[in-house]
Amino acid sequence: MKLSQGVEWGLHCAALLALAPPGMTVRREGLAGHYALPVTYLAKHLQAMARAGVLHAVTGPRGGYRLARPPGDITVLDVVEAIEGPAPPFVCQEIRQRGTGAVPPESCRRPCAIDALMTQADRAWRDSLRAVTIADLVDRYPPGLRERNAELVAKAAS
Amino acid sequence: MKLSQGVEWGLHCAALLALAPPGMTVRREGLAGHYALPVTYLAKHLQAMARAGVLHAVTGPRGGYRLARPPGDITVLDVVEAIEGPAPPFVCQEIRQRGTGAVPPESCRRPCAIDALMTQADRAWRDSLRAVTIADLVDRYPPGLRERNAELVAKAAS
Repeated sequence: MKLSQGVEWGLHCAALLALAPPGMTVRREGLAGHYALPVTYLAKHLQAMARAGVLHAVTGPRGGYRLARPPGDITVLDVVEAIEGPAPPFVCQEIRQRGTGAVPPESCRRPCAIDALMTQADRAWRDSLRAVTIADLVDRYPPGLRERNAELVAKAAS
Repeated sequence: MKLSQGVEWGLHCAALLALAPPGMTVRREGLAGHYALPVTYLAKHLQAMARAGVLHAVTGPRGGYRLARPPGDITVLDVVEAIEGPAPPFVCQEIRQRGTGAVPPESCRRPCAIDALMTQADRAWRDSLRAVTIADLVDRYPPGLRERNAELVAKAAS
């Protein structure tokens, strides 16, 4: 089980955009340069975040990305699901209904106990990521970083 | 992010072995047949569970697998980590220290806020899986399944 590198990239970019001057956008080259990320690969993740309604993409010569909502209204889970998709990591194949031990369908009206507990664990993971917003994330930056990144992103914004 | 199919297989097999007569082993063919699983592919997961100390492998003509500990002492997380390995799904690449926005190393003594929250979510997931044992799992079977599986596994055991 492995999360895409795009999760780290997307969260850092969202946190950086949270510090951009209101209404301004940052080009993907500006975001990529800030963290030394490959532009074309980052672009795919930024597009996924725009499709998921986390970012707003502005086209044209002064175009770029900004957060689609205030940073306090975007959870870490929103970004993770934008990049990874909402599919749970465990997908029950109902093997209890197969083989010499096959359980008859009438005994399988309730979800399999294994499916149920994996779903519960997935919910605990998502709840944890839903409890933190992009605004919270920026508040947890070490002293001075918020101000420094705000300055840098203002220069990159248009 | 996706868990290996082996997680479902491993948990079902561990739950089945929890019902085997004490001290008896079940051959991999017996486990595979119960759930109509491909024997050679299942064998890899059973071996991984044995390496992780979840199963005990007995070699020879009357060999096979049994649980290495009482089912109340094996957690679902033990099985999941045996199959998936203990590596967390998120691995921080410290991109905060790269690019035009690079944070100096002296400001990076504490883990990145993003790394910290992803680690916290992973802990919530593992805590949830650690809270359930293989014995609990069998207790959650629908009525009659425990007895039926115990009968079937006794026939397959040697």
